[in-house]
Amino acid sequence: MANPDANSGLFLSFEGIDGSGKSTQARRLAETLRQHGHTVTLTREPGGSPGAEEIRRLVLEGATDRWSAETEILLFTAARRDHLEKTIRPALARGEIVITDRFADSTRVFQGLTRGDLTATVDRLHDLMIGVEPDLTLLFDLDPAIGLSRANARAGAELRFEDMGLAFQTKARAGFLGLAKAHPRFRVIDADADPDTVAARVWATVAERLGASLSKA
Amino acid sequence: MANPDANSGLFLSFEGIDGSGKSTQARRLAETLRQHGHTVTLTREPGGSPGAEEIRRLVLEGATDRWSAETEILLFTAARRDHLEKTIRPALARGEIVITDRFADSTRVFQGLTRGDLTATVDRLHDLMIGVEPDLTLLFDLDPAIGLSRANARAGAELRFEDMGLAFQTKARAGFLGLAKAHPRFRVIDADADPDTVAARVWATVAERLGASLSKA
Repeated sequence: MANPDANSGLFLSFEGIDGSGKSTQARRLAETLRQHGHTVTLTREPGGSPGAEEIRRLVLEGATDRWSAETEILLFTAARRDHLEKTIRPALARGEIVITDRFADSTRVFQGLTRGDLTATVDRLHDLMIGVEPDLTLLFDLDPAIGLSRANARAGAELRFEDMGLAFQTKARAGFLGLAKAHPRFRVIDADADPDTVAARVWATVAERLGASLSKA
Repeated sequence: MANPDANSGLFLSFEGIDGSGKSTQARRLAETLRQHGHTVTLTREPGGSPGAEEIRRLVLEGATDRWSAETEILLFTAARRDHLEKTIRPALARGEIVITDRFADSTRVFQGLTRGDLTATVDRLHDLMIGVEPDLTLLFDLDPAIGLSRANARAGAELRFEDMGLAFQTKARAGFLGLAKAHPRFRVIDADADPDTVAARVWATVAERLGASLSKA
């Protein structure tokens, strides 16, 4: 854990393209961990604290081109800072396991890579204002065509990124896989299977990676 | 003008503590410039574009400690980026004179100095995401006790900074004067006089500094 304020707790992030099943799997992992006696904070981005949820509404509702990529990066980083201060750090300080459905890697991919190359800007902003990475990041990897058909089957007001289509999701998938190659904290989960099979893969990966910590309860 | 996208237009900012009269004087200068045949965009921060005004409401309404200083800096910078893209740069590109009631110096003082020392963070964030300074900054300087009594005479929902009292405003005044000493784009206006006298000081300063440009119309 890169966060010097919290010397206990475990910080997990779930990442992937839309329709990859990561939200369902985050809920299932939280439940399994609780059955094993752990206290779990399950959260999400953008959002995850009252202030960050207000910023989420500002970013995700309205037209796709409402904000420039740069403004969007700033708003997501503001929301992340609030989420970190109000939800993640306090939970880690209490020794809990935090599972967040998306974190900074989503900004690296969706704002850094898919709307021009803003990778360096995203990274510098993260280093300046956030400075924390998860202990373990699970990347739910899936053919974007399957992901899109799953995502489109859901209803919802927040369709901004799904709206951007297959080429966008294909680029996003490649971006996530590139991050996974670069950072040892990543584990790639093959998400093209039924939910029970994927849940078993998640549990095996989490148990292996964090075995010592997980057996403490 | 530090903005490479705009090689025409003039960019003026008005800064100072609350109650210094800068908003009144910004309106008066805009009027005088228009009477001299110039096209003027009069704007303000936080806000100045539809998106930035929404971010303004998020920042200024609610409890004083609703956001940490760091989150507040990110939100103000997001609003500034939108303001720059949607209002300031287009107006400068059309060759207009832009007068903004507050710009980055307010963030340097109110978020950078008065809630702990975040000066370096504010400066690095500005360099990374904004990168533009006004051609000329007028600092309306005033005894904070006078400023506060003027500000308190006004009603309004947005009392966040006024609420912080005399010690806060005294620190802010010193912060503004420090910036004025460090940056040649500043001119300090003695704001402890009646509005007509201050307006005459403003006009003399603007006419002197930008004489060549102002005589073009």
